[in-house]
Amino acid sequence: MIYPKSIAALIEHFQKFPSVGPKSAQRMAFYLLRMPLTEVEKFAQSMIDAKQNTKTCEICFNMSSSSPCEICSSPQRDKSTICVVAETKDLIAIEKTNEYKGLYHVLQGLISPMDGIGADDIRIKELLNRLTDENVKEIILALSPSVEGEATSLYLSKLIKPFGIKISRIAFGLPVGADLEYADEITIAKAIEGRREL
Amino acid sequence: MIYPKSIAALIEHFQKFPSVGPKSAQRMAFYLLRMPLTEVEKFAQSMIDAKQNTKTCEICFNMSSSSPCEICSSPQRDKSTICVVAETKDLIAIEKTNEYKGLYHVLQGLISPMDGIGADDIRIKELLNRLTDENVKEIILALSPSVEGEATSLYLSKLIKPFGIKISRIAFGLPVGADLEYADEITIAKAIEGRREL
Repeated sequence: MIYPKSIAALIEHFQKFPSVGPKSAQRMAFYLLRMPLTEVEKFAQSMIDAKQNTKTCEICFNMSSSSPCEICSSPQRDKSTICVVAETKDLIAIEKTNEYKGLYHVLQGLISPMDGIGADDIRIKELLNRLTDENVKEIILALSPSVEGEATSLYLSKLIKPFGIKISRIAFGLPVGADLEYADEITIAKAIEGRREL
Repeated sequence: MIYPKSIAALIEHFQKFPSVGPKSAQRMAFYLLRMPLTEVEKFAQSMIDAKQNTKTCEICFNMSSSSPCEICSSPQRDKSTICVVAETKDLIAIEKTNEYKGLYHVLQGLISPMDGIGADDIRIKELLNRLTDENVKEIILALSPSVEGEATSLYLSKLIKPFGIKISRIAFGLPVGADLEYADEITIAKAIEGRREL
């Protein structure tokens, strides 16, 4: 035996999620089986609802319930600055700080030749189209300091320079509250490289 | 803003699962939103199917597609031995070894006064009822070596002794392939305690 077929199918579905291995998938499936049926139905429905009600913003490619999204259509946002991120979840991380009041552009990925993702596979062309709008004064690149993030940042800065628009990149360094002793070498190197005069 | 309502609801559902924190729940929700709608629908349906097709075995309380379950109703299984486990997933872990050919009894929990789970809240009464069947010759307690597992094992062994049935407990010690140097103190203590003469 081992598993009834319907449980095996459920475990297989859970296992498709990122960073969910066979053990976690099994644990999640068993947890679900102990939930009341009404709860399971609500969860199932919420997945379909979220999928059906989520649109991709035609301007910035943010995931949202409307297109253009709430940020692009808000009169309160500063339309002179565009912050470029890889994914919607990065946008949300920045929104949570309540510090940034400009617009966004969600690339929907990073250039990654290893994974066969080239410049045409992400929303670079659409970003450049937005730059022809003369209101745009600054582009902030908020891509992670990975190989793919570095490559994409470099590529973008080359393409954006001819527009004569200010380009900046978010700072990398020691996280607030972190102990220098426990920081990894690359972070320390980035922190030294990005030092500021006092 | 932060999240559209339907995405927030989905994240909240994912977060209910054990060992899924806010970050993992968010990652899973976004992964789901990038899946094609047909895939999402299949996943949603598989949850409902699994829940609806899963029964609890009336004899051993295993989760199964039938009751009595495949194990209880199999003529190949040795009916003289009952292995007592806390959860169906423990049963599955033992089944995967292909070593054990007896029956099971799934307690559906462990005694845990801290969580308000007493002896009457798990399937102990039903286990004792099974012991009146004279075929049963041995009970193997396969409960984890946690405080709750120890308490439940102790309690069960006291209740089972009067039946004059052999009781054993699975061995605890160093896992195969493990390095003594990296094992935790409790495991080493258990390994020494459970030593066998050569």
